[in-house]
Amino acid sequence: MSEKKRLILNLFEMNTPSHITHGLWRLDGNQRERFNDIDYWIELAQLLEGGGFDGIFLADVVGTYDTFRGGPETALREGMQIPSNDPLLLVPAMAAVTKRLGFGVTFSTTYEPPFAFARRMSTLDHLTKGRIGWNIVTSYLPNAAKNFGLDNEVPHDQRYAIADEYLHVLYKLWEGSWDDDAVLRDRERGVYTDPSKVRYIDHVGEHFRVKGPHLAEPSLQRTPVLFQATGSPAGIAFAGRHAEVVFTGGRSVADFQKNALAMREGAIAQGREGSDIKFIVQAGIVVGRTEEEAADKWRRYREHTSLEGILAHMSLPIDLPAFPRDTPLREVPGAERFAASEDDTVGSALDRIVAGREDRFFVAGTPKVVADEIELWLDEAGIDGINLRQYHSFDTARDFADLVVPELRRRGRLRDEDEAPQTLRERLFDRGARLPENHIGTRYRGGAHFDEPVPTLALV
Amino acid sequence: MSEKKRLILNLFEMNTPSHITHGLWRLDGNQRERFNDIDYWIELAQLLEGGGFDGIFLADVVGTYDTFRGGPETALREGMQIPSNDPLLLVPAMAAVTKRLGFGVTFSTTYEPPFAFARRMSTLDHLTKGRIGWNIVTSYLPNAAKNFGLDNEVPHDQRYAIADEYLHVLYKLWEGSWDDDAVLRDRERGVYTDPSKVRYIDHVGEHFRVKGPHLAEPSLQRTPVLFQATGSPAGIAFAGRHAEVVFTGGRSVADFQKNALAMREGAIAQGREGSDIKFIVQAGIVVGRTEEEAADKWRRYREHTSLEGILAHMSLPIDLPAFPRDTPLREVPGAERFAASEDDTVGSALDRIVAGREDRFFVAGTPKVVADEIELWLDEAGIDGINLRQYHSFDTARDFADLVVPELRRRGRLRDEDEAPQTLRERLFDRGARLPENHIGTRYRGGAHFDEPVPTLALV
Repeated sequence: MSEKKRLILNLFEMNTPSHITHGLWRLDGNQRERFNDIDYWIELAQLLEGGGFDGIFLADVVGTYDTFRGGPETALREGMQIPSNDPLLLVPAMAAVTKRLGFGVTFSTTYEPPFAFARRMSTLDHLTKGRIGWNIVTSYLPNAAKNFGLDNEVPHDQRYAIADEYLHVLYKLWEGSWDDDAVLRDRERGVYTDPSKVRYIDHVGEHFRVKGPHLAEPSLQRTPVLFQATGSPAGIAFAGRHAEVVFTGGRSVADFQKNALAMREGAIAQGREGSDIKFIVQAGIVVGRTEEEAADKWRRYREHTSLEGILAHMSLPIDLPAFPRDTPLREVPGAERFAASEDDTVGSALDRIVAGREDRFFVAGTPKVVADEIELWLDEAGIDGINLRQYHSFDTARDFADLVVPELRRRGRLRDEDEAPQTLRERLFDRGARLPENHIGTRYRGGAHFDEPVPTLALV
Repeated sequence: MSEKKRLILNLFEMNTPSHITHGLWRLDGNQRERFNDIDYWIELAQLLEGGGFDGIFLADVVGTYDTFRGGPETALREGMQIPSNDPLLLVPAMAAVTKRLGFGVTFSTTYEPPFAFARRMSTLDHLTKGRIGWNIVTSYLPNAAKNFGLDNEVPHDQRYAIADEYLHVLYKLWEGSWDDDAVLRDRERGVYTDPSKVRYIDHVGEHFRVKGPHLAEPSLQRTPVLFQATGSPAGIAFAGRHAEVVFTGGRSVADFQKNALAMREGAIAQGREGSDIKFIVQAGIVVGRTEEEAADKWRRYREHTSLEGILAHMSLPIDLPAFPRDTPLREVPGAERFAASEDDTVGSALDRIVAGREDRFFVAGTPKVVADEIELWLDEAGIDGINLRQYHSFDTARDFADLVVPELRRRGRLRDEDEAPQTLRERLFDRGARLPENHIGTRYRGGAHFDEPVPTLALV
């Protein structure tokens, strides 16, 4: 009997009151408004590690959603991704109290220089002893561009072209600038580092010029585990080259499978194996000791859900809630595209929008029902893991840890909790701590290819 | 009897093997080569807080010293500020295990965008519960410029002009973008933030364009305690406007006093009080239970000191050690400026260079002798505190905590260790957590002056 596929289990989080479950910060006992407090993150990290999670996946944006109703008011009122704090700075506090938990942090390649970011990630890989992953994003909020001196967003495909060069700069710093045997710490001879094993990268490209050398010495993973959240054609091409774990969705399982297939083909075109990319999806899971308990929870979550928060998050270009629910959509200027039928109303359109924000992977039920659904997604849909949607802090994580994890463990679906601490890459891929040899990032090892142009990547 | 001036006691540190005491990483028992390890920083933070220190002051550079002998080889061999990791990321790990210790972190205004930095510092102020300070620098290494896409350093005075605008952008974000009563967390009404109390900053200046709003909600201090390390004319003018604590030196006590006076005058010209700026100097302190023990330690430190490390750190433009020590300086091309007399030699010039790198404030002796010297510097020279030079990790901090701190406490020269945790600004200034009203950063409170040009600052 072949070994069962084991679930990658992450909690999906963000350093803000309302990440994706808008309105739910108001639930009794929800700790979200403690997000400024270091103890919130320490308690959460301990809960996750003790509860069998592989990692915490931290989203981020560097601007405000200020399109809905032409301003940031709704986002502010809802605590919807504002106020928000830096995600990278949470990691050392959580690393200080854990040994195994992985950290996926989001950072955009569009606005900040690669040299400083390269050192930050090396620092985190050192401080976590190799437990850091990076969720590569290129940013999409118009307000973010304006916070960094631009008039407007960089066009989508150009952002990916910049990101591709950004990654090559990072690979040169992380993989090529220092050899593994560079640091000697030889007290007798008084040699900390052998200078012949360290080099400038002298990168001169279309978007970046970076001299080097990298400031940090090689960390356990060197390059953090490369996560990417995407579904767009340019993003899929980019993922084929760079991503090790893709966080993706789609309107249906068939959609997800189509995307995954395209990325695996992209990987193969880049000289990688199709299996070198793992896929995680967002999962909404509400578990109870009984069906009734789960249903009650889910009812409570729905009742507290904020339509306003969802619409601001979607950057809805029209203020639908300003109209009575029974208004025919055809009477609302610009609302035609939300109509499902000739006599559709504002109310039914809003209901569809809210429903459409729920996860494809959704289940409410007992631990057995939940575990069955997880196994279906692993074995039939072909995913490798989930980012667990957090309805309530810390109930969502605690319920999952207390009720679902033991069931998944019985079924051999989780990674061991008693094995020696290891790097995040080792944990997720059951192989070495470093990028595999067939990944493009490794071409710069030993300083090779430093003086060649970045290989062209067709961004479809 | 008037109250005695109490010492600001910081340990001077850097996230690197060899910060300023070059060669000493080789000392028996020195822990410096553990700098990549989170436990090094956790142990150090606990030692400092338990030992009566006010703070840890973290230096940083974002490039390599590659001028001496035309390359980075010496710096690498010596572990001289390379390898080095990001300093900000150490703070959350140390904050997780302390309640009172302050953190002064170095960050340069020259290469990275203010919007992201503003959020990082707000995040740290939240995570530390108001214990963060920022050491404002503008960077000086040619290699740093080349790591951020420039051909060469930005000229010194222009760096300060950029820094001045940078600070105004930060003040708008930290002080003006959110009102104190903006965040309501009103679960009943479903209002996290009152949108009428948050605003764009819409900064459009010579060097920066930043829309806002700030992403972080107000933290305990809002603006971190503003440290500055300077002695140059432009730096002194800048300090008069911005700095709350200046880390400065000079070739003599008279020099220091002249600089301090100029900065106090600058402060007064900016509408502040002369006493609004506090001064700290670097102090080399070697303490022993007996004079002999102190002398032995100091002998050991001198014996392990690396001339090579010092010369690379100085960016010495000529390779003096390549010549025999008895070579007359006049026979070394370009060495005239190091000559003290007509028949000076390479050896005596090198001895003078090494001696010149020692601190003006240096004392080796028993706790009583050390405390006497500290009192002299506080009361006669007029300093407010020290950044303690670290010869050995953790002996330097532990010796000071075990031997000198009890003596200083007996003399009423330290801040209380049993008082309730407070912000760094409260601790250092015995007044509120926020910038005082007469500081220029407060002019933006409530969104005032957002649309006016930054007031001109004459950078002498």
